[in-house]
Amino acid sequence: LCHRPLAWGRATQQPPDPLQPPGLPLAPCRAFSNNKILVELDKSSGVATMKFKSPPVNSLSLDFLTEFCISLEKLENDRACRGVIITSAVPKIFSSGLDITEMCGKSMEHYAEFWRAVQEMWLRLYGSNMVTVAAINGSSPAGGCLLALSCDYRIMAENPKFSIGLNEAQLGIVAPFWFKDTFVNTVGHRVAERSLQLGSLHPAPEAHKFGIVDELVPEDKLQEKAAAVMAQWLALPDHARQLTKSMMRKAVLDRLVAHREEDIQHFITFISKESIQKSLRMYMEMLKKKKS
Amino acid sequence: LCHRPLAWGRATQQPPDPLQPPGLPLAPCRAFSNNKILVELDKSSGVATMKFKSPPVNSLSLDFLTEFCISLEKLENDRACRGVIITSAVPKIFSSGLDITEMCGKSMEHYAEFWRAVQEMWLRLYGSNMVTVAAINGSSPAGGCLLALSCDYRIMAENPKFSIGLNEAQLGIVAPFWFKDTFVNTVGHRVAERSLQLGSLHPAPEAHKFGIVDELVPEDKLQEKAAAVMAQWLALPDHARQLTKSMMRKAVLDRLVAHREEDIQHFITFISKESIQKSLRMYMEMLKKKKS
Amino acid sequence: LCHRPLAWGRATQQPPDPLQPPGLPLAPCRAFSNNKILVELDKSSGVATMKFKSPPVNSLSLDFLTEFCISLEKLENDRACRGVIITSAVPKIFSSGLDITEMCGKSMEHYAEFWRAVQEMWLRLYGSNMVTVAAINGSSPAGGCLLALSCDYRIMAENPKFSIGLNEAQLGIVAPFWFKDTFVNTVGHRVAERSLQLGSLHPAPEAHKFGIVDELVPEDKLQEKAAAVMAQWLALPDHARQLTKSMMRKAVLDRLVAHREEDIQHFITFISKESIQKSLRMYMEMLKKKKS
Repeated sequence: LCHRPLAWGRATQQPPDPLQPPGLPLAPCRAFSNNKILVELDKSSGVATMKFKSPPVNSLSLDFLTEFCISLEKLENDRACRGVIITSAVPKIFSSGLDITEMCGKSMEHYAEFWRAVQEMWLRLYGSNMVTVAAINGSSPAGGCLLALSCDYRIMAENPKFSIGLNEAQLGIVAPFWFKDTFVNTVGHRVAERSLQLGSLHPAPEAHKFGIVDELVPEDKLQEKAAAVMAQWLALPDHARQLTKSMMRKAVLDRLVAHREEDIQHFITFISKESIQKSLRMYMEMLKKKKS
Repeated sequence: LCHRPLAWGRATQQPPDPLQPPGLPLAPCRAFSNNKILVELDKSSGVATMKFKSPPVNSLSLDFLTEFCISLEKLENDRACRGVIITSAVPKIFSSGLDITEMCGKSMEHYAEFWRAVQEMWLRLYGSNMVTVAAINGSSPAGGCLLALSCDYRIMAENPKFSIGLNEAQLGIVAPFWFKDTFVNTVGHRVAERSLQLGSLHPAPEAHKFGIVDELVPEDKLQEKAAAVMAQWLALPDHARQLTKSMMRKAVLDRLVAHREEDIQHFITFISKESIQKSLRMYMEMLKKKKS
Repeated sequence: LCHRPLAWGRATQQPPDPLQPPGLPLAPCRAFSNNKILVELDKSSGVATMKFKSPPVNSLSLDFLTEFCISLEKLENDRACRGVIITSAVPKIFSSGLDITEMCGKSMEHYAEFWRAVQEMWLRLYGSNMVTVAAINGSSPAGGCLLALSCDYRIMAENPKFSIGLNEAQLGIVAPFWFKDTFVNTVGHRVAERSLQLGSLHPAPEAHKFGIVDELVPEDKLQEKAAAVMAQWLALPDHARQLTKSMMRKAVLDRLVAHREEDIQHFITFISKESIQKSLRMYMEMLKKKKS
């Protein structure tokens, strides 16, 4: 389903497993890294970690999304892997969300390909059979927030300088209906309605108060806490947990699957508007000025 | 859509705008007042205030509802207006809800006309493109509560003598499904289920605890706070905010639009029952005794 | 609708009512008891109490469920009865949920009959016209939790040793969609998703925090509090309260009614799997060891 197969390096940090013939497509992995995401699997616990390492801000470019989907699929098909912790290797940022350069001044074909990859990321992560825990060690606006919302559990560093939210409205754009559905499933209709209309970026303590994240911990305890939460979820029999998860999320997943091509067309039409292109260009200018 | 056009006076508190030809139906207004609602528009901020001034209790009569719809439509079509604050000019009461005299001992035709006006009020307010803030400076039962729930944000005077809620069940009647949908969207299913069955009128602090209102402030800070909240919502680009609002509210609005005539028939059948008429007469008697 | 009519004793604690001809099927009752549930009706208040007395743990066997449905129907049709308080006569346990022996090593026909009785219990209780209050004076896992969730109001003894929750996933099985719907209507989507996936049994204080129960009271005040809450709910006119309740619960009730036979087939297929049978046998072994 990921339409841009990437070649990726084989186990970079561990010696090859002598019990595994090399080169089989779904061979159990120890660790593999490609350009933007470091994936490590601890076979003893069955827990993988996906670490975003795409500076400066882990933005969700087409390359990043493609790599994310391939890595997730690889783990999903690996019987040694039962859970994934998603976190960032870039200080202060979890993920800045969709890469605006992918949405600015490109061809219709590019917009379609990009949007399909965004959908794919969400369909795979929100519908994953694995236990998924977000260890949010930095700010996480827009698409970065969606990534976190799509996991089973969210732990955030309790630093009030880190914020999270679906702030699309601030950029003059609108979160797609399936971002909204995911948000409503997490925080309820009223909190979602207010937060989406205001394009709010909630500092960690407020995000916790509103239920956007489940727990706050000091930043240096984040990975430890994520491992403990993962162990708690993995104590359940996989089959019953997976069926239960599917029962809770299926209606919302099915809705995008049923309207996927329409949603792509809608995105292309919206993003191609001169007024929207102008908004995005202004936003990028503002970001550039902020840096300098 | 408002079926009883009212004539209303032109700007009563401001001199006529020399730049505007008089008498055009949708000419940008400064202030206009009619019998029951005072409307003022501050062109510099783009914020209008609708002040209910229909003593003794701002009940939602057919005349009041018609005036409300016309005023709201006027503002909706006025490019100078981006937001509306709804509040009361009558001490201690925001609005007492639907006028029971409109539902007692009248003709079928009257019931139909009245109910269509109630629907219209909700369709326009809940679906408004403007930012809508309720500054609830008094009690607000039943239809008065619906008015507040239909806004984007609710601020209430923190006086525990003021109460708010959908208390229809106390009168022996049932809140329509779209009152219920609006309530569920605001407070969630469980709080709505309990509150509707008990016909609860919640004192301001409890209303805040249950999420019926978003914020409490001292009564003398209410208008100031409403203006500040409005400014926060108006900081967002209109187009993105409007599309987001529509995405959140469309399902519930569409449900009434699809069942509007059935809903009118249902109301007529219900309200015409002798048992219901008797309940309402008893309730009016009780109100009269309370006064004297 | 209850397919296994039980004979039950007539008024055991009260003398026969001289105004009532004996033996009429729906004669107003004072008290009747059969094997597993003691039912007492206080005609002056219109409030019945159903006390589960099926030691050791009030498990929901086919016999228990049949008796429950017949008793509830009897009260539902008794004009002297307007509300029911459900509680336990067995110390420390409200109800342990579905009787696993009914789901282990039995025929397809038995599974079908049992599952239909579970559905029936929920359809009748969640859809009851009476006010239903659960006075939860002990632990209440799985089906026991569903019983409580199906009432209008839940009061729990504040003993942290008592726990409640839909813990099916712990047993390797999955709560049916209508258990889930009832849970979501009570606690919202996010709390339900997390609690169901973890198969959580929440100690009373946590159950209260998450909204699974409405109130905690000291155990010796439980019945008194239940009576007070019942009086509050009975202060409303029955007709309006019933229509309001139906409006809130109809969508979820209709969903099971529309898919009832499928749901039975699904249960039979699932429960007949060797892997599931093995899980249940292991669970029963574990329970036996715990006891000894």
